[in-house]
Amino acid sequence: MTSNPRGKFITFEGGEGVGKSTNIHWCSDWLTAQNIDVIVTREPGGTPIAELIRNKLLKAHHAEPMVPMAELLLMFAARAQHLEAVILPALSQGTWVLCDRFTDSTIAYQGFGRGLDLSSIETLKTLVQGTLEPDCTLLLDAPIEVGMARAHGRSVATGEATDRFEIEQLAFFERVRDGFQTLAATHSRFVTLDATQTLDDIQAELAIRLNLLRAP
Amino acid sequence: MTSNPRGKFITFEGGEGVGKSTNIHWCSDWLTAQNIDVIVTREPGGTPIAELIRNKLLKAHHAEPMVPMAELLLMFAARAQHLEAVILPALSQGTWVLCDRFTDSTIAYQGFGRGLDLSSIETLKTLVQGTLEPDCTLLLDAPIEVGMARAHGRSVATGEATDRFEIEQLAFFERVRDGFQTLAATHSRFVTLDATQTLDDIQAELAIRLNLLRAP
Repeated sequence: MTSNPRGKFITFEGGEGVGKSTNIHWCSDWLTAQNIDVIVTREPGGTPIAELIRNKLLKAHHAEPMVPMAELLLMFAARAQHLEAVILPALSQGTWVLCDRFTDSTIAYQGFGRGLDLSSIETLKTLVQGTLEPDCTLLLDAPIEVGMARAHGRSVATGEATDRFEIEQLAFFERVRDGFQTLAATHSRFVTLDATQTLDDIQAELAIRLNLLRAP
Repeated sequence: MTSNPRGKFITFEGGEGVGKSTNIHWCSDWLTAQNIDVIVTREPGGTPIAELIRNKLLKAHHAEPMVPMAELLLMFAARAQHLEAVILPALSQGTWVLCDRFTDSTIAYQGFGRGLDLSSIETLKTLVQGTLEPDCTLLLDAPIEVGMARAHGRSVATGEATDRFEIEQLAFFERVRDGFQTLAATHSRFVTLDATQTLDDIQAELAIRLNLLRAP
């Protein structure tokens, strides 16, 4: 009897409305059809304690403004729990892990988007992950207007920014997109998919990538 | 008109039952009597968000065991919020801050007590505090048996360890005490007070220390 080979760790990244959920579930079904054990999880969250951090702290409204460093540390606290309690045990049992967002989102949103010091994020990444990286990061990329219109269920035609808040929000999401593209350009584990394609076209590409990852 | 001088940041450290609360409040009253603005706060906690981290995560019961790195990051998330929202603004207004536990407790409990890598704690300390240190750290020190008996409202005579859990607990608190003593021996900001003295004797020493800190 041989022990299971380690599972693959695949993260899905991208802005709002680029179709991460739909495509993660498609990948999960595809892998299951090939008799590969797979779990789907998300960040921040993925364990009861990490979901508590998400719901009671990161996504909750607070009368007091949360300081950026506290938010960053909470994000990595949830990640430490998720990694040790869910992701690493699954991988070592041979189960593939499909994760909706991971550290690249922290770099893109907190770092590029909000201007938090990238070296602080890198320090925390090393502390929590050591040398662990995803085997593959699938970046679903689309122009901001397309993603935001989809996320808000609006047509692109009526999705034009009208007020100052919305213009600031667009500028923020442009920085986030730039962050993801910069990461993709500098890390070979990234595969960038054009999220404006039809789902059929995206999923044909996903099948090719999953097949490559399956190869021994 | 001259601006206020910066307030002093005084932390109170020590194990269970050594009299931190009583003596912090005595110091607060003493400073108030000298017309010095003072706030009393505590860690983990001290702001609504940090208290939420304390109550919903650090002190709550979870079905899932919390991983040590997650606990450490939560501790520092609460600290980042507390520092930026409460401690630093007070100090810069000239208010003295008396804080029940601070980073030294993290080093003593998580580091020395639970065996977490001291260099990880140091990395997080630098990330959150930069070069900020308390102006003075008052360590109330007592033999474990004395503190534990006081904390549990038992007499020392009947406080003998009886079962394995209690023996392990005693060993843990011995390591914590050793941690505090090691910190005190290596940082000049520490003042160690023998907590087995009478309150009058301790408070006579506290008055001397506060007077020294008041001197311009």
